[in-house]
Amino acid sequence: MSDLSAVKALIFDVFGTVVDWRTSLITDFMWWSKQRGISADWTALVDGWRGMYMASMDDVRKHPERGYVMLDDLHRRSLEKLVEKFAIKGLTDADLDHLTKGWHRLNPWPDSVAGLTRLKTKFVISPLSNGNVALLTNMAKFAGLPWDLIMSAELFEHYKPDPETYLGAAKLLCLKPEEVMMVAAHNGDLAAAQKNGLKTAFVARPTEYGPHQKVDFDATGNWDIVAKDFGGIADKLGC
Amino acid sequence: MSDLSAVKALIFDVFGTVVDWRTSLITDFMWWSKQRGISADWTALVDGWRGMYMASMDDVRKHPERGYVMLDDLHRRSLEKLVEKFAIKGLTDADLDHLTKGWHRLNPWPDSVAGLTRLKTKFVISPLSNGNVALLTNMAKFAGLPWDLIMSAELFEHYKPDPETYLGAAKLLCLKPEEVMMVAAHNGDLAAAQKNGLKTAFVARPTEYGPHQKVDFDATGNWDIVAKDFGGIADKLGC
Repeated sequence: MSDLSAVKALIFDVFGTVVDWRTSLITDFMWWSKQRGISADWTALVDGWRGMYMASMDDVRKHPERGYVMLDDLHRRSLEKLVEKFAIKGLTDADLDHLTKGWHRLNPWPDSVAGLTRLKTKFVISPLSNGNVALLTNMAKFAGLPWDLIMSAELFEHYKPDPETYLGAAKLLCLKPEEVMMVAAHNGDLAAAQKNGLKTAFVARPTEYGPHQKVDFDATGNWDIVAKDFGGIADKLGC
Repeated sequence: MSDLSAVKALIFDVFGTVVDWRTSLITDFMWWSKQRGISADWTALVDGWRGMYMASMDDVRKHPERGYVMLDDLHRRSLEKLVEKFAIKGLTDADLDHLTKGWHRLNPWPDSVAGLTRLKTKFVISPLSNGNVALLTNMAKFAGLPWDLIMSAELFEHYKPDPETYLGAAKLLCLKPEEVMMVAAHNGDLAAAQKNGLKTAFVARPTEYGPHQKVDFDATGNWDIVAKDFGGIADKLGC
């Protein structure tokens, strides 16, 4: 483990790292659809929705002339395409809004809240997520995530892994990049953070994608910390 | 009291409304200067420092071509002028940094933390302060302020009472202006918030400026809530 004594803030990827978006959304939609009387293959819809995530952000990245589009709006556009593709009938505008806001109602992994609470005693803790500020704020209240502040790609009008996000987060905190540690379950996110001078911590979330998980079972880079869960990161940082 | 059933978020002025900057700074500097062996009229320095606050932000407002300057930097510049004016000798660069960061170490009014904790159960609560993000984050950890997120003039590159701050806060929260309530001990701040469509709550902080307080003993506008303290706001909002 490299010298981490200068680290003052930990910033976290959220979808998959802090919260279990897949199980949360599938469960939420199955319950809701029973009440609402609308049936569909919600598991396939959720997997398809996340499958459109990267491309939807890439589209924003490739077209700066259109202006930044926040994740709630990208989620809504992708959902509308999927509803058509899966031929789900009877959804009103309010229903589509409710489903889109499902991304605000995600449950944490079992170790997340306890781990964050320990880490908060010694460090500034914040998300650095592609989710927009309102999404992350609502999620924190829903899931009991004890963030010190909310940092989002929206603040920088750039999605991760653009350098503007990692460097923008350090700048807002008035810290040098090496005083900030990125925590993620995704090796790609950590590679970008490390390239921009941040410290890195990896936790494996091997069930994030359910049966479809193909990568990120293990650390594949030279990360400063590799831990089983957030409690393990707290152990290694002496919290 | 007007209909406040649509309000979903409360945003707070901080210096004077949530924290007692004057007593905190004077006490902090008196203790520190004894250890450091540097004597000065710290009360006069603190009053003089706050006296330069409005003009320093106005200078940023009048010179957009110079770019936004965050409050930590304005504080530092004003301090350097005051140190010269008061002929305080022996301060190193680290000392000036420590004094400037005094604004990160402010104590809450006695009702602030309990009131915020009650309000947080029903509303999103956030500062909307001219203090920069790092200042507000450090202050929240120091003072135990349970914010859901940190919103600062820095995010909008405009100081209050510019409309960009109030409207920017509502936009980040994905709320309409009338779904957001500004809480302040300053009638001027509330007037600007109300003009931009926000709801308003006033609390008097009659000792904010010590013996020099001249205004804001009472509500002077048609605010939606007028209360004695944050507990009173919580009472009126049914928390």
